[in-house]
Amino acid sequence: MRLTTMTDYALRLLMYVAQHPDRLCTIAEVASAHAISETHLMKITQVLGQRGWLETVRGKGGGIRLARAPADILVGAVVRDVEPDFCLVECLGAKNHCRISRGCRLTGVIHGALESFLGHLDRYSLADLLPSPGGSASAVALPTVPGRRVRRP
Amino acid sequence: MRLTTMTDYALRLLMYVAQHPDRLCTIAEVASAHAISETHLMKITQVLGQRGWLETVRGKGGGIRLARAPADILVGAVVRDVEPDFCLVECLGAKNHCRISRGCRLTGVIHGALESFLGHLDRYSLADLLPSPGGSASAVALPTVPGRRVRRP
Repeated sequence: MRLTTMTDYALRLLMYVAQHPDRLCTIAEVASAHAISETHLMKITQVLGQRGWLETVRGKGGGIRLARAPADILVGAVVRDVEPDFCLVECLGAKNHCRISRGCRLTGVIHGALESFLGHLDRYSLADLLPSPGGSASAVALPTVPGRRVRRP
Repeated sequence: MRLTTMTDYALRLLMYVAQHPDRLCTIAEVASAHAISETHLMKITQVLGQRGWLETVRGKGGGIRLARAPADILVGAVVRDVEPDFCLVECLGAKNHCRISRGCRLTGVIHGALESFLGHLDRYSLADLLPSPGGSASAVALPTVPGRRVRRP
């Protein structure tokens, strides 16, 4: 089970930009920092711009920056936006040819599991993914999204 | 985000066999019923046999049957067994070259989401996936795995 490289790189791109809030970042520097192709990142930047997560400043001295504060960018929302589909099994996709779909309960069970997956990601914002200012990071991020039922320990 | 075809077909194969508890099933009939290639199903049958979900009876009149009662086959356990990997993002895989892994909290968040996904599937058994005896099925299966915290409405 995998997310696409597109989603993986989109999250890394957003994390990089979030760590440089005081200036515009360039695709070239993100590509260099993460050893990802610029072509790939340009496509991802375009998608993130269209969906309202990134702002692009054109021209000399231009670059990219977050369109919202890191705390307002939920990981689940980004994954929903960038991942091309969530057809975990054939019956969840548009091209479903499964012959038992009508009387089968698998679709609902898999759909519920997907909701649990995305629901977990909704508890975290981009701000929760960033390393602490000192450079160290705990292995597990603590969700800080307001209004959620998650309590800090 | 997708599960492999292997896992999708494995679940359908188990569901088919579970619906014929009074006799041995053949790979040919499952292939015909689901319009899946026999070659693909033979490979899946072998894996399910090795992992203790299916029993194979060789020779004339042979076939396959469940190695356990449907209620004792948890969907989450089958998915864990059959899916080749759960490398949702690069940092969850063995070939991780991400340059920010050390100070990054994404790994833990994605891992938590994966646990939520599989934990949901653990609440359902193969018996929960089958159509009701009358042929109709509700869109959402009700978990019946004993000892879980899930309550029937």
